[in-house]
Amino acid sequence: MKIETQETVFIVEPRDYKLTEPLPLECGRVLKDVTIRYETAGTLNADASNAVLVTHALSGDAHVCGRHTPEDPKPGWWDNMIGPGKYVDTNKYFVICSNVIGGCSGTTGPQSIDPDTGKPYNLDFPVITVRDMVRAQKRLVQHLGIKKLLAVLGGSMGGMQVLQWAVSYPEMLKSYIAIATACQFSPQNIAFDWVAREAIKADPNFNNGNYTPDKTPDRGLAAARMLAHITYLSEESLGRKFGRSLQDKQELEKYDYDFDRDFAVESYLQYQGKRFVERFDANSYFYITRSTDYFDLTATTGGDLVKAVNGVQAAGLIVSFSSDWLFPTAQSQRLTNALLKNRKEVTFCEIKSGYGHDAFLLEVETLGRMVRDFISHHAQQEVTND
Amino acid sequence: MKIETQETVFIVEPRDYKLTEPLPLECGRVLKDVTIRYETAGTLNADASNAVLVTHALSGDAHVCGRHTPEDPKPGWWDNMIGPGKYVDTNKYFVICSNVIGGCSGTTGPQSIDPDTGKPYNLDFPVITVRDMVRAQKRLVQHLGIKKLLAVLGGSMGGMQVLQWAVSYPEMLKSYIAIATACQFSPQNIAFDWVAREAIKADPNFNNGNYTPDKTPDRGLAAARMLAHITYLSEESLGRKFGRSLQDKQELEKYDYDFDRDFAVESYLQYQGKRFVERFDANSYFYITRSTDYFDLTATTGGDLVKAVNGVQAAGLIVSFSSDWLFPTAQSQRLTNALLKNRKEVTFCEIKSGYGHDAFLLEVETLGRMVRDFISHHAQQEVTND
Repeated sequence: MKIETQETVFIVEPRDYKLTEPLPLECGRVLKDVTIRYETAGTLNADASNAVLVTHALSGDAHVCGRHTPEDPKPGWWDNMIGPGKYVDTNKYFVICSNVIGGCSGTTGPQSIDPDTGKPYNLDFPVITVRDMVRAQKRLVQHLGIKKLLAVLGGSMGGMQVLQWAVSYPEMLKSYIAIATACQFSPQNIAFDWVAREAIKADPNFNNGNYTPDKTPDRGLAAARMLAHITYLSEESLGRKFGRSLQDKQELEKYDYDFDRDFAVESYLQYQGKRFVERFDANSYFYITRSTDYFDLTATTGGDLVKAVNGVQAAGLIVSFSSDWLFPTAQSQRLTNALLKNRKEVTFCEIKSGYGHDAFLLEVETLGRMVRDFISHHAQQEVTND
Repeated sequence: MKIETQETVFIVEPRDYKLTEPLPLECGRVLKDVTIRYETAGTLNADASNAVLVTHALSGDAHVCGRHTPEDPKPGWWDNMIGPGKYVDTNKYFVICSNVIGGCSGTTGPQSIDPDTGKPYNLDFPVITVRDMVRAQKRLVQHLGIKKLLAVLGGSMGGMQVLQWAVSYPEMLKSYIAIATACQFSPQNIAFDWVAREAIKADPNFNNGNYTPDKTPDRGLAAARMLAHITYLSEESLGRKFGRSLQDKQELEKYDYDFDRDFAVESYLQYQGKRFVERFDANSYFYITRSTDYFDLTATTGGDLVKAVNGVQAAGLIVSFSSDWLFPTAQSQRLTNALLKNRKEVTFCEIKSGYGHDAFLLEVETLGRMVRDFISHHAQQEVTND
């Protein structure tokens, strides 16, 4: 007898929170009429002590887990990590994820209408920083009635937000998990961002950010994405995944001898570029990459990292991946050492992985167990939330 | 008493050699009316046994050493390595260097006039390979009356030509020096080339290669160059050279909060991009990068490297640099092992350097001594040149 099993679809719903006050920014400007797109999963408990804030990476959004409808073909971006019974168990925890300011997935960003002009901001949107993103998130968290987060976790640019949380609002989090990140963006990464934006600028449709929805700088944005994508993978994973295989051909040396895609890796990049432009906005790409360029925990302490993390109160878990050359392990170790010099509670782990930077989304099992146990450990400790 | 010393300027002269026969290419097409721009330094001895062929990298040219006039402000690209009394001593050796086919510095390339149409080839130029470059060089070498080269040496794409020489014309060289290179281009490198060409394509001036001298795709070509430039440096060297320093500012966190260059590394890249477009042609960039993509010594042996180098006769020196992530040491070791399995005479050395791929032009002293001694050793052995 055949038994049909039907997995229950975990439904989540996007919500908007309109900030009640304008948001002051690091650049000196003030952002009015800010909307934050966010999603939550699970239920906030009575003393609001089970809230876990997830921060997303460059191309992420508020849709971290579950599906929007029973028919929704694609779950949230970290659905293998977060959900009922998963590593971050929404049966136990109240998970919050919001789209960053400057983004293009619901939160106020360059596509939004500037209330002063009635037109989209485009590149008149103020340059935002990771600290600004976190300042906006803090208001959302307070709006949700949470005084202290059980944990803040995220990878890559999400990890920068995590670290900024620990430094900016030390009393508002009990623990933090910073994955595949660093306390400052490296000059190599700044350089890659610069070239990515130059590729977008070279696209005639870009028009200094004043493009229309029917004529977007897809070619430039695709090039930017493809470039970034290379940096997310390791030389090893590219070798293992594609090698020098030709697309749609069995034999070596059956080259096309032209400039169209010939190698499988070229075809893959082309596909990644195409997919990205369907869901991402070029101006947002400018703002979000710039926020990472400017990210430097030590900027306010004249380059002194030990001093920069002196005020941290929460317990930290810092995770790096052995083949991640965008955020090499050495950077996580440097951060860990600075925390230890301040006698902060911190655990560091390098996960051996060949996946490069993308490992933070791919090494789900190893990372997931670590995250689960770390949060669970801190959930068992008393939280004062008043 | 003050003695004024005047260093003698070493003058070299560019020459053109017109191939007497059309050049058959790997792609199946035949190139007619091929001109090879080349320079020589030193004097060929009576038995033509002191000839050293230097092969250039992607953006190099025939002008390898010396100056074109006494007032010439800039010497050849490897002038600190090659010249009278230098590591490759032109008082002893007859040095030859030619611009590759497909190039834009005198040798027939996409800018040349197609004799069949009377117009520039542009992207109708046939796709050329490293093997084609070497086939053209072989004719030049024969034209100069040399039956056996004392040595062939080059770095990066120059190193690919060196290896192709050793495999294609084993009887025509006594020794070879392959620096910062590999027996095949890696998928990561193919990926970077792809994105570089996509950035050029995104430039409206590119016009599928049919641009005019007054409207060249400078923006796209500059982006391509900047991208490549990042891959030539190591994370360490970028950190040491620039760190997160801001351009024209002393203080950290005095950000401009815009998208113009703010960091010193951005300013540096911008400068490199600008300088490059003044001397390089976008179509040539297409052809030369494609030749490296297609470079794979094992393509003709079904991926078998040991078999691919089985016919090599010359003695080899293979040099890699510890921080070169474009052509990592492991690739040079793999090549060395394949040669050793064939009981070929080969010496391998990894030079410790923080400079990344650029080390092959910067670690002059260490590399120079090695090159000098290796060539000198082989010069002392009898050469049969008839």
